[in-house]
Amino acid sequence: MRYFPSMEKPPRSAARIIVTGGTFDKRYDAIKGELTFKDTHLPAILEQARVALPLAVEIRLLIDSLQMTGEHRQSVLDACRQSPERAIVVVHGTDTMVQTAHVVGSAKLDKTVVFTGAMIPYSVQGSDAPFNLGFALATALALPSGAYVAMNARVFPWDNVTKDRAQGQFKPAHPA
Amino acid sequence: MRYFPSMEKPPRSAARIIVTGGTFDKRYDAIKGELTFKDTHLPAILEQARVALPLAVEIRLLIDSLQMTGEHRQSVLDACRQSPERAIVVVHGTDTMVQTAHVVGSAKLDKTVVFTGAMIPYSVQGSDAPFNLGFALATALALPSGAYVAMNARVFPWDNVTKDRAQGQFKPAHPA
Amino acid sequence: MRYFPSMEKPPRSAARIIVTGGTFDKRYDAIKGELTFKDTHLPAILEQARVALPLAVEIRLLIDSLQMTGEHRQSVLDACRQSPERAIVVVHGTDTMVQTAHVVGSAKLDKTVVFTGAMIPYSVQGSDAPFNLGFALATALALPSGAYVAMNARVFPWDNVTKDRAQGQFKPAHPA
Amino acid sequence: MRYFPSMEKPPRSAARIIVTGGTFDKRYDAIKGELTFKDTHLPAILEQARVALPLAVEIRLLIDSLQMTGEHRQSVLDACRQSPERAIVVVHGTDTMVQTAHVVGSAKLDKTVVFTGAMIPYSVQGSDAPFNLGFALATALALPSGAYVAMNARVFPWDNVTKDRAQGQFKPAHPA
Repeated sequence: MRYFPSMEKPPRSAARIIVTGGTFDKRYDAIKGELTFKDTHLPAILEQARVALPLAVEIRLLIDSLQMTGEHRQSVLDACRQSPERAIVVVHGTDTMVQTAHVVGSAKLDKTVVFTGAMIPYSVQGSDAPFNLGFALATALALPSGAYVAMNARVFPWDNVTKDRAQGQFKPAHPA
Repeated sequence: MRYFPSMEKPPRSAARIIVTGGTFDKRYDAIKGELTFKDTHLPAILEQARVALPLAVEIRLLIDSLQMTGEHRQSVLDACRQSPERAIVVVHGTDTMVQTAHVVGSAKLDKTVVFTGAMIPYSVQGSDAPFNLGFALATALALPSGAYVAMNARVFPWDNVTKDRAQGQFKPAHPA
Repeated sequence: MRYFPSMEKPPRSAARIIVTGGTFDKRYDAIKGELTFKDTHLPAILEQARVALPLAVEIRLLIDSLQMTGEHRQSVLDACRQSPERAIVVVHGTDTMVQTAHVVGSAKLDKTVVFTGAMIPYSVQGSDAPFNLGFALATALALPSGAYVAMNARVFPWDNVTKDRAQGQFKPAHPA
Repeated sequence: MRYFPSMEKPPRSAARIIVTGGTFDKRYDAIKGELTFKDTHLPAILEQARVALPLAVEIRLLIDSLQMTGEHRQSVLDACRQSPERAIVVVHGTDTMVQTAHVVGSAKLDKTVVFTGAMIPYSVQGSDAPFNLGFALATALALPSGAYVAMNARVFPWDNVTKDRAQGQFKPAHPA
C-alpha cells in the first residue's frame, strides 16, 4: 500500500494490525440494503490518522465474530504466532472477542496482543472505531507481553474480561 | 457531565484531559465564515468513543497555540502539577506543542503527561482527532513518568521531538 | 422547535413533509448491532440545511417499506388528503415507493405529492438523503398537482416509474 | 467521469452546474491550517446523491465571492449565455451571490439560472451543501426562465433578495 512504504518489505514494522472483520469494518451495501463486509477500512483510518509509524496490515478474516469457529480462532492465533512484530492489534467483532482473546492468551506468546473492535461501524456516523484503534495501538506498543482486550478506553487482561451485552460495554469478569 | 459520573466528585478518575485549544477543537462559524473556538469537542469525542474509564476533563485554555505566551505555558504546567491524576493528556495546538512539552518536561513531575492534537479539526471530515486522543490516552495510562508528544501514532520524549511543518508531521529532533 | 415555528400551529406552512420511514431514516443500534428505526432524522436534516421556509413535519409511519400493507398506503393517502399544505414530500422506503405513489396518484388530489427516499441512511457516511430531500422539496413547491417520484435527481410521474433493483436506481417504466 | 457519461460530449445534458467557488467548495488544508480552494466537491456530491440525470459540470472560478470583480461576474454571465443547457445552477459564495445574480438576471437570458451556495463547507460536519444543491437543481429544472437565488429552502427572484449577514440567511429585499 502506497501510504506504508514499509509494507512491501516490512522487516522493521513497529506493529502489526490483524483484521478479522466485526462491526468495525461493516459497511452499508446500498443495493442489498444491509451492513456487509466488502473490504477493510484500516488503510483509510490509518491515512486519516496521519500515521507515520511503519505498520503491517494483514487481513486474516472479514467476518462477523458470531460466525467464528474454533478453526477461525486458531487462524488468528497462527497469525499472531507468525507475526514478525511483537506489538499486535487484532481488530475483532465484539460479540466473541473475549473467546478469541482467550485462545491467544492461553498460548502465552512472547508478544503483546491487543484485541479491539467497535460498537458502531467506521462507516456510520458517530463510530468509536478510530478512537479504539488509536487506543489499542498505543496499548500494544507500551504494555508487556500478554493478551488484552482494549475497549471503552479500558484495558483488560484476557482472563478477566466479559462483554455486558445489555450495556454494550466491556467489564472485568471477576470484579476485584 | 452526565456521561462522567466521576467528574462531579473525581477522587478516582483514572486520567485527566487538559484542554488548551488548537486545531483539534476548532469549529466552523457559519456567520463569520471561519474556524474559531467556541467550545471543546472533548465530551462529544469521549461519548462517541463510549469511554467508560472515569476521566476528568479540564478546559484550561481555548486558543490557537501560535498565540500561546510563556504565561499560558506556565498555566498548563500548573494544571499538570495540580492534577490529582497521574496520567494526563494535554490537547494542544501542534504549532507550539513542542515548546509547551518542553516547559512541562523540564519540571520533572512524577506524572505521565502526553501532548497530542490534530492536523484537521474534529469538526472537519477526515479528522485525526479521535485516533490521536485514543492513542495519547493509552500512552498516558501505560508509560512511566515523563512528558511526551504523541502524534502520527508515534510517541516522542519531550526533549527529542520537532514538528516538520512542510510535511505536517512530528519527527525526532535528533535522529538516532 | 425553533426551526419549525409552523409546527405548533401551522396555518401558513409552505409545505408538508410526511415521514413513513424507509432507509432514509434508519439508524444504527449499537446494542442490537443492526439498522433500525428509532426516530426521524428530518428535523436534524432541516436544521443542518438551515431551512427557513415554514414546514410542517408529520411522522405517519416509521417502517421499512417492504412491510407496508395496503392499509399503510391508505394511511399515507389520508395524510396527503388531510394536509392543509398543497406541496407535500413523502419520505418513503425505495422498495415499494412506486406502489404507494400509485395509490396516491390514482386519487387525483389537487396537490403536488413528491415521493423520495434514500439508498443509504442519513446516519451512514455518503448518504444521498439530504440531496434527495432538497430536490424533492423544490419539486413539490414548483410542479403542478400530481404524484411524482423524485430520485437520482430525476422526477417521474407516478404512473411511469419503476425501481431497477439491480442498479439501485429509478427509471421510467415505459421508456419513450 | 463515469457518472457523467454526458460530460465528454454533452449534447443532451439536462442541466449545467457552473462552479465558482465559495464556502460550498472550501476544504481544510492541514499544512496551512486554513480553509482554502483546491478542487470542487461537485463530482463527489453528485456521486453521493446517486444522480442519474445527465449533467454538465463546468468549473468557471474557484474563489471566495468577496474577491469577485465585475470581470468575474461577466465571466459567470458568459458561462450562462454559452451554456447549451437551459437549466443552470451556479454554485457561488453567499457574500456576493446577490450581486452576481443581479448581473445575470439583468441580462434576461432565456434560461433558468439558479444561484446557490453553502453557509458551511461540504467538507465540514453539518454542511448545508448537499441539500442546497438538490434544492437548486430541482428549481432550475422546474421554473420558467429567469435568475433566482435558492437558499434556506426558499427561492427568490434575483431582483428581490438580500443576505441578512447577522442571521446568515437570505430574505426578500422588499418585503411584501
